Amino acid sequence: MSKEITSRAQDYSQWYNDLVLKGGLADYSAVRGCMVIKPHGFALWENMRDQLDRMFKETGHVNAYFPLFIPKSFLSKEAAHVEGFAKECAVVTHYRLKNDPNGGGVVVDPEAKLEEELIIRPTSETIIWHTYKDWIQSYRDLPLLINQWANVVRWEMRTRLFLRTAEFLWQEGHTAHATAGEAVAETRQMLDVYAEFAEQWMALPVIKGVKTASERFAGAVDTYCIEALMQDGKALQAGTSHFLGQNFAKAFEVKFADRDNKMEYVWATSWGVSTRLVGALVMAHSDDDGLILPPRIAPLQVVIVPIYKGPEQKEQIGEKMKDLLLQLKKAGIRYKYDDTDNTRPGWKFAEYEMKGVPVRIAVGLRDLENNTVELARRDTKEKKSVSFDGLGNTIAALLEEIQQAMFDKAKAYRDAHITRVDSWEELEKVLDGEGGFAAAHWDGTAETEEAIKQKTKATIRCIPLDNPPEEGKCILSGKPSKERVLFARAY
Amino acid sequence: MSKEITSRAQDYSQWYNDLVLKGGLADYSAVRGCMVIKPHGFALWENMRDQLDRMFKETGHVNAYFPLFIPKSFLSKEAAHVEGFAKECAVVTHYRLKNDPNGGGVVVDPEAKLEEELIIRPTSETIIWHTYKDWIQSYRDLPLLINQWANVVRWEMRTRLFLRTAEFLWQEGHTAHATAGEAVAETRQMLDVYAEFAEQWMALPVIKGVKTASERFAGAVDTYCIEALMQDGKALQAGTSHFLGQNFAKAFEVKFADRDNKMEYVWATSWGVSTRLVGALVMAHSDDDGLILPPRIAPLQVVIVPIYKGPEQKEQIGEKMKDLLLQLKKAGIRYKYDDTDNTRPGWKFAEYEMKGVPVRIAVGLRDLENNTVELARRDTKEKKSVSFDGLGNTIAALLEEIQQAMFDKAKAYRDAHITRVDSWEELEKVLDGEGGFAAAHWDGTAETEEAIKQKTKATIRCIPLDNPPEEGKCILSGKPSKERVLFARAY
Repeated sequence: MSKEITSRAQDYSQWYNDLVLKGGLADYSAVRGCMVIKPHGFALWENMRDQLDRMFKETGHVNAYFPLFIPKSFLSKEAAHVEGFAKECAVVTHYRLKNDPNGGGVVVDPEAKLEEELIIRPTSETIIWHTYKDWIQSYRDLPLLINQWANVVRWEMRTRLFLRTAEFLWQEGHTAHATAGEAVAETRQMLDVYAEFAEQWMALPVIKGVKTASERFAGAVDTYCIEALMQDGKALQAGTSHFLGQNFAKAFEVKFADRDNKMEYVWATSWGVSTRLVGALVMAHSDDDGLILPPRIAPLQVVIVPIYKGPEQKEQIGEKMKDLLLQLKKAGIRYKYDDTDNTRPGWKFAEYEMKGVPVRIAVGLRDLENNTVELARRDTKEKKSVSFDGLGNTIAALLEEIQQAMFDKAKAYRDAHITRVDSWEELEKVLDGEGGFAAAHWDGTAETEEAIKQKTKATIRCIPLDNPPEEGKCILSGKPSKERVLFARAY
Repeated sequence: MSKEITSRAQDYSQWYNDLVLKGGLADYSAVRGCMVIKPHGFALWENMRDQLDRMFKETGHVNAYFPLFIPKSFLSKEAAHVEGFAKECAVVTHYRLKNDPNGGGVVVDPEAKLEEELIIRPTSETIIWHTYKDWIQSYRDLPLLINQWANVVRWEMRTRLFLRTAEFLWQEGHTAHATAGEAVAETRQMLDVYAEFAEQWMALPVIKGVKTASERFAGAVDTYCIEALMQDGKALQAGTSHFLGQNFAKAFEVKFADRDNKMEYVWATSWGVSTRLVGALVMAHSDDDGLILPPRIAPLQVVIVPIYKGPEQKEQIGEKMKDLLLQLKKAGIRYKYDDTDNTRPGWKFAEYEMKGVPVRIAVGLRDLENNTVELARRDTKEKKSVSFDGLGNTIAALLEEIQQAMFDKAKAYRDAHITRVDSWEELEKVLDGEGGFAAAHWDGTAETEEAIKQKTKATIRCIPLDNPPEEGKCILSGKPSKERVLFARAY
């Protein structure tokens, strides 16, 4: 393994790419804007997906699967939605290839043109609400609480591994309710689920908030979000939950008979997180030596590297470790005992450091004599000699400690990067300096929001849900404002 | 729930559709040939997927994810492969829509034509082997044991829910090896995994065999398969595992340096099963009253329906059942206690029968007095009163019993439908009568195979792996043959 990682200080963007590529998370593909998710990256995503899936099921949701293709005409049915999604998408126009009569391989068969073009789903509201029309007749059919794990395609012009790719993996929840109140409660509940997942599992502190009108999902009445902060001071939207009102129900004519047998339009939500979260994870925690992964979702939590000369020593150490491995297995800890002879211990250390394995154990002959092992934490790089007795418990406790320490560190950084600014100069100083969130007054108009964006490249990330009311003046227009909002440059 | 299911005797094909639709497994969609997998069907698929995934991981495989899109030129690189897959596929030609200048919604933007068309993957050998070229340099990089869970698209003209849909979900394993022997061993190992899964989890007896040349996967040297028998006497290919030789390595120039530093082409396998298995499951086990699902993969294993009048009785029964539910939960049994007042017990019975829940428990006031419950098996429809004491264990044992009984029943049916035929008349009699597999001699030529197919619509399903050598004469040509092969009409 070559450890040539660009440092964060030198080039943050290149550092990120180096980590994703050399940490074995993803690779570029032959198709523009699409990536290959490599085994280590996919195992990480699987752990994230499985935990989210458990949380969705605990809150009463079930999974289903809807078609990859969306008839072109569906996109036009919701006016705001088509503006947001119809523009950059993959369009299927034909359903057959044929041998090139001129001998040039295969060509599109012009005879096989679709009557109506199909769009590869950029998000599935339209096809799902078209389906819900058949599934919902009465209040007894509500609420309908469905989630889908799927691939989606948005033809982005500038792509970045995980952060912005033409094809990405995600989940999209689509729920239907009898009342606006229930739908809003669902929207907020799922935002809480996302926040809990980000903080407890990804060790990623987030701010829960609501988007301004101009940053809303195309077709939503309200978009709630969780916003995280990366180590370069840029914000990253880590998940969104939308209250869709009756917009899609009206577009697709989905009505239900209420308890009084009156026909009403259904109320809707949708919510999603994607493989983008893997990018957030990398950028929030890692260092110049490689990935740092939170123990609860790390594909490998512990690696044990024996240090020996010759097969006799190897066997001696292996024998001693057997019981520990059994303990780890019983405790449900994801471990690897790496006694391959292909590479040297130093190379292995560097490799597991690069891949972000939270705990590394090294054990040599002297350790056997002393009844100890060397324990190294990936997050702090702290090393210490610990007793072999009770090592299983020591490791389990250390994994929890690391999880908490990673969250605390990220939270301390994030909290230190929320700056109250009361003048334009202060705003620019924050944005052009250390970055982070600038809490500033805004007059509530889209015009001012756009003007600030044009001048600074910063957007309003959200209006925090726990915002205290505060009288003030807009940082640009000087007009009155009743609360601060969070500005930041963002991924 | 309406229970109007067409009977098998009346119209087997309609019976199947009724079960899939009314059993809540899938629905038709707005896109030709694509289905919606409904929550009950998806939960079933999830259980199948999760078990397969465990088996893949236990045999050393890891998951990854490759792009949905395949550049058109990739398909042409392997000569046989392009013949097999390039023809009926979804072709992406454009990447943008725009507002129709004539006001007719959105239209394809002619300016946004792709330089090279992209095919929605019908299978991923080409994009994966293009990627493997970068991942494999030395024998140290081998074996590469990767699996992918994904959606694929084949533009089938005639589609059937689950059995043959334009888009379907599947897994595709793609492995790379240093020697032909290792690759063949992998091919056979995965066939064994599929057979074990089908028999132990789906309660579906299968015959392991190898395909004839004309039934091989496009690009394979050998295709192994598992073949199952449906209740109408038609066979269904339930999984395939391909030894690809060096075909894809040569097409994509994937070489490795062996231990002597000599450059060699890599040896490959691929293997897959799909949501088609859900269709097989339905057709193999179900009856005229609905689905019958094997306990090990049933989304719901036990349903408990209290029978009461008024809230007091309801609470009395609920109180008594609490401990049982706790026992079931601890035992990891998937159960539901259905005490909703929306529908009557009789309606609930019919609904859970339709959905194939293996065990139903009914409990009323008299049962409380007698310290019993009524236990009903979905597979045999047998009902009996059993003691409330030790009920958790009774249920756990019954679930295992049902699993075994379903397999035994399907195997008895299958075994009774393998007929040795030694004349053309016997062959026709079997095929036009009860169906099933006809074990007959064949001269080994593609011409005879094709002629038999034309005359009978039956194909050679496989040459069983455990076939005894036997001298004989081809059933059509009369030429000499050294073993029998299995003919059947098939899905």
